[in-house]
Amino acid sequence: MTDFRSDNTHGCSPEILEAIARASAGTQTSYGGDEYTASVRRRCSEIFETDVEVFPVVSGTAGNSLAIAALTPPWGAVFCHEDAHIQRDECGAPEFFSGGAKLIPIAGADGKLHPDDLARAIKTVAESKRTAVPACVSITNATEAGTVYSAAEMQSLRSNLRVHVDGARFANAVAATGATPADLTWRAGADLLTFGATKNGALAAEAIVVFRKSLAEELALRHHRSGQRISKMRFISAQLDAYLTGDLWLRNARHANAMAQRLARGLETIHPVQANVLFTRFTPAQAASLRDQGFLFGHWPIFGDDAYRLVTAFDTTEEQVDAFLQGLGPQASGLSPRPRA
Amino acid sequence: MTDFRSDNTHGCSPEILEAIARASAGTQTSYGGDEYTASVRRRCSEIFETDVEVFPVVSGTAGNSLAIAALTPPWGAVFCHEDAHIQRDECGAPEFFSGGAKLIPIAGADGKLHPDDLARAIKTVAESKRTAVPACVSITNATEAGTVYSAAEMQSLRSNLRVHVDGARFANAVAATGATPADLTWRAGADLLTFGATKNGALAAEAIVVFRKSLAEELALRHHRSGQRISKMRFISAQLDAYLTGDLWLRNARHANAMAQRLARGLETIHPVQANVLFTRFTPAQAASLRDQGFLFGHWPIFGDDAYRLVTAFDTTEEQVDAFLQGLGPQASGLSPRPRA
Amino acid sequence: MTDFRSDNTHGCSPEILEAIARASAGTQTSYGGDEYTASVRRRCSEIFETDVEVFPVVSGTAGNSLAIAALTPPWGAVFCHEDAHIQRDECGAPEFFSGGAKLIPIAGADGKLHPDDLARAIKTVAESKRTAVPACVSITNATEAGTVYSAAEMQSLRSNLRVHVDGARFANAVAATGATPADLTWRAGADLLTFGATKNGALAAEAIVVFRKSLAEELALRHHRSGQRISKMRFISAQLDAYLTGDLWLRNARHANAMAQRLARGLETIHPVQANVLFTRFTPAQAASLRDQGFLFGHWPIFGDDAYRLVTAFDTTEEQVDAFLQGLGPQASGLSPRPRA
Amino acid sequence: MTDFRSDNTHGCSPEILEAIARASAGTQTSYGGDEYTASVRRRCSEIFETDVEVFPVVSGTAGNSLAIAALTPPWGAVFCHEDAHIQRDECGAPEFFSGGAKLIPIAGADGKLHPDDLARAIKTVAESKRTAVPACVSITNATEAGTVYSAAEMQSLRSNLRVHVDGARFANAVAATGATPADLTWRAGADLLTFGATKNGALAAEAIVVFRKSLAEELALRHHRSGQRISKMRFISAQLDAYLTGDLWLRNARHANAMAQRLARGLETIHPVQANVLFTRFTPAQAASLRDQGFLFGHWPIFGDDAYRLVTAFDTTEEQVDAFLQGLGPQASGLSPRPRA
Repeated sequence: MTDFRSDNTHGCSPEILEAIARASAGTQTSYGGDEYTASVRRRCSEIFETDVEVFPVVSGTAGNSLAIAALTPPWGAVFCHEDAHIQRDECGAPEFFSGGAKLIPIAGADGKLHPDDLARAIKTVAESKRTAVPACVSITNATEAGTVYSAAEMQSLRSNLRVHVDGARFANAVAATGATPADLTWRAGADLLTFGATKNGALAAEAIVVFRKSLAEELALRHHRSGQRISKMRFISAQLDAYLTGDLWLRNARHANAMAQRLARGLETIHPVQANVLFTRFTPAQAASLRDQGFLFGHWPIFGDDAYRLVTAFDTTEEQVDAFLQGLGPQASGLSPRPRA
Repeated sequence: MTDFRSDNTHGCSPEILEAIARASAGTQTSYGGDEYTASVRRRCSEIFETDVEVFPVVSGTAGNSLAIAALTPPWGAVFCHEDAHIQRDECGAPEFFSGGAKLIPIAGADGKLHPDDLARAIKTVAESKRTAVPACVSITNATEAGTVYSAAEMQSLRSNLRVHVDGARFANAVAATGATPADLTWRAGADLLTFGATKNGALAAEAIVVFRKSLAEELALRHHRSGQRISKMRFISAQLDAYLTGDLWLRNARHANAMAQRLARGLETIHPVQANVLFTRFTPAQAASLRDQGFLFGHWPIFGDDAYRLVTAFDTTEEQVDAFLQGLGPQASGLSPRPRA
Repeated sequence: MTDFRSDNTHGCSPEILEAIARASAGTQTSYGGDEYTASVRRRCSEIFETDVEVFPVVSGTAGNSLAIAALTPPWGAVFCHEDAHIQRDECGAPEFFSGGAKLIPIAGADGKLHPDDLARAIKTVAESKRTAVPACVSITNATEAGTVYSAAEMQSLRSNLRVHVDGARFANAVAATGATPADLTWRAGADLLTFGATKNGALAAEAIVVFRKSLAEELALRHHRSGQRISKMRFISAQLDAYLTGDLWLRNARHANAMAQRLARGLETIHPVQANVLFTRFTPAQAASLRDQGFLFGHWPIFGDDAYRLVTAFDTTEEQVDAFLQGLGPQASGLSPRPRA
Repeated sequence: MTDFRSDNTHGCSPEILEAIARASAGTQTSYGGDEYTASVRRRCSEIFETDVEVFPVVSGTAGNSLAIAALTPPWGAVFCHEDAHIQRDECGAPEFFSGGAKLIPIAGADGKLHPDDLARAIKTVAESKRTAVPACVSITNATEAGTVYSAAEMQSLRSNLRVHVDGARFANAVAATGATPADLTWRAGADLLTFGATKNGALAAEAIVVFRKSLAEELALRHHRSGQRISKMRFISAQLDAYLTGDLWLRNARHANAMAQRLARGLETIHPVQANVLFTRFTPAQAASLRDQGFLFGHWPIFGDDAYRLVTAFDTTEEQVDAFLQGLGPQASGLSPRPRA
């Protein structure tokens, strides 16, 4: 079986597993008072070139939703791409955690927000005076469409609103753009980052990285009452600590990105391939044949009934990619347009 | 001053004021155990030709939000027009009352949902499996654009989801279509109606009319904990009782509708004029001149920077309409297209 | 029928009804932009001897819950008497409006919080570090037990927490204590007051009086999204305006208090009678006989199975009181103790 | 350092770490579609002698709060001991997850609910008709006081309400009572169990075990939108699977319980010692001396200023216990009474 369904279907990097085993020795203060959590804070402060606070969580949905809740009042409007994970995949978690804030989905080519569209959406809500109060913008980088925002693009999206970066695949964005973590976040106005590790080799670990430190006290309480303040926090933090040691996070991401590029060389893709996710189109016969050959991948109807998603991971091999392309043969051309939502 | 800003800027019908004064005599069981509330229930059961439960509330926002909350779980999707009051004007009240449900705004000409668009939106959410669970459809009749759904159009919007009708101007819809209240609601699948009286001559009174009676027990508790179970409920119910006596609700609505028709004869309107709300376009000079002459009306930028709204009420006079049209003079032509949201 | 069930079962003061009728003439800006709301703000600023903001609402539950929500984060602890209306009678409205704050009920004789008990409860929560974050104290004056806090008692309850006063019967407290409204509120640390009018002669009107004006912006949004920002707000404000004109509020309260004193002269009461609510004990035979004679009153089992509540109102007459006492005859002695909750 | 602060400060059982490492091989369907989650469901069905559904979560707070939310509407009352984790330690998580339900804390000796107290509390809320609607009872077994409920005691607490068992230390209760898991749960009316593993040797893993299977569909959605539906769920489930294999859960618990018994032989304890948690009293000098000798343990002021908590774990050794008792020397007698909350 070769699995391109998601980076979530893969296991852990050996370095992560070893760190977990090491962290099990001895006792540690629970609920985040442990030395691993302190180390993660230090490492993040180095990587982001500024003093940050960090809250480890176990899922991207929790990380995003806690961050959104800290950036918007219950009557706030949260601006995001219409394909954003917070809008499309979290079953209303941001609304739940925030006490009923309103997501304002915005269309945009290649899974990206564009400055004019964002400005117009903010203006419409602001002028309504009764829809909601514009509160924050959530930007996914790398995007759900497998594209990335450069540092300049991040800058172009600045407004007077707070900014959350959904970095479930932040490592892939840093690897792809070559930008510094700081340039992709707080130097472009980001207040909070959900910094993902799970999709890129961890067991279950994401870090809410807090650039606007006045948010930390409130986040600590939200963290606790959301059930994300894990009692044996050291085990979440040990994963993050290993992830940030010796560039493991970037090495894993570079590899996954490279495997996506290798795939893209043999496929017509719907969006530019910049990270580790790509979308393409198959005829029903092609899809069936690939599955018969043991390849796993996802149908993606929001991009058309013939659209499919392929995701590469830290442990995807060149052989797997090449076998897939060989198994596919020549693609049908004539891409269908995206259906109206 | 002639006021076309809203039907909310007008006072009360004399019949309503008299009913309030009469209801003040003697004592009555509080919190809805009074005889006026019982009478409203009977009158609604007659008017809707079926046995209903009724919860009096004091605002449309409360009525809509309680109804929506009763029709969707916190993880549900609520489908509505993108210009629906619940989406655009309630500052997140439906999200608040429902515990974080997700409104799915749908575009549609003339403020109306169209069956294919609705079906497509439901299908997209249902197929996502992770956005939210399709729960209910909210249909405003008369619409925020001043148009109405006929009984046949209501039927055309049926799906397997629950249905809420926002009837802030339900009287205007009944008056305009000539359909029976039953045909515009439960016979077309409606489970709950927010039946408005405030805009049409009451002081502050709306009734949540419950066609699906299994919802009543839950609604009673939501009603209480939302602060809408007024202690001296008799005074809200007395308004509704007077409103439903001797066809006052229809007489007021027919008059307001007729005044809108009279206005429409002298104006180019953006949407068909079917109820008591109309939209038109003025040059800046025209708008300024009308205001200088003492006419009040609203700027409505979601339909374009040159768009304005005029609303007639139960006590708008022919003289007021004629004076407005005379004060306007000939309109500029060349309607601007609606801006992208 | 003579009705001692509640001050909520009575009608309106004639002055209030007249004010409503007068307010119906002409048009007014909706949603609180009317001249009556402005007048209420001015009158409250005078009466409270400080510049205040005011939000009219239609129920005590709404007023209390909005106020509490503005004074506590969702993870906050709200300290109140165990018999407080917010704890016992609002079906979780404060929890709902606040996004899940935790009420900490405190026992105390005669319906009152006592400084040592309050301090101990706050300390316990503060030390736990994990129960909730101490946020505010809610004090009902006059209390649910029909007693009042003097200005000195209000001072004795000050802590470093925010303070809400539930003044559903605030007029009765001012009338009973002779203290100034300022001394009973902001001079004793109160940030917000729910200033009741409904129980004391209004149709449906309470005012959230804002002493800490930095809370006003947030309250305005909560007010809107809770469905309490009534469209024809002038009609709520006109009631409040009349209530505050020519001391109507105090005249009504003084009368109701005097009627309770008159009742108390002929009864053994469970608590000191200081406002317009009193509790006493009847044998089953007495209660049945009084009801047969047409007297209405409430059974109050939280004070014992033989406990009953009598409430006087602005329009209770001396004749009604005297007839009740005559109908009762001599009371059984031997008061039962309050049952454990 | 010998650590008696909590079972949360300890690492993982080797069997758990090995299971995690094994589970990392190959790919698995994400979000719970993996083979480990299926295995946990089968093992729980065997252990509980009935067909159950299982939702793995990563914290006790999440498990409890999701369970409570599934058993109460937002306007419900949840009855629990005043020292219950859900009441005292979760920063309002149950209120948050349930949309504002009301916890009703009940006093009771030795951390336990007693049938008469529970019945009285339910009756008081039910009779109020306005406080909240009695919805469910949450019973912690083993309790926060280190005591356990026998199967007969569980039966004695049955009412007409739904039942949640907080089993953060359920293994310790089974080990201590010798009762079957079924007798301590669904045969005593339990609808849901939060079955803890973290405190007893896992990394971060609790299972919501669903006995009333009609709750499963709703729980699945709550699970997702709370951020507890971990993408690489196999790693949470692999822990649970190992925990339930070859009686590891009971072996670990029996050991921890035995260490507590060993400790208790040398101490005066505040409550009967039945599981792995005990409370005792130290003079300030004793506490300081023990800390100087490197022993870690918690101050527990809710049981008095001189009260301390000692917790044993799966890997606590006899040597550690004996050294502690030797370090302590003879205890001061004269236990202080519990302070009033």
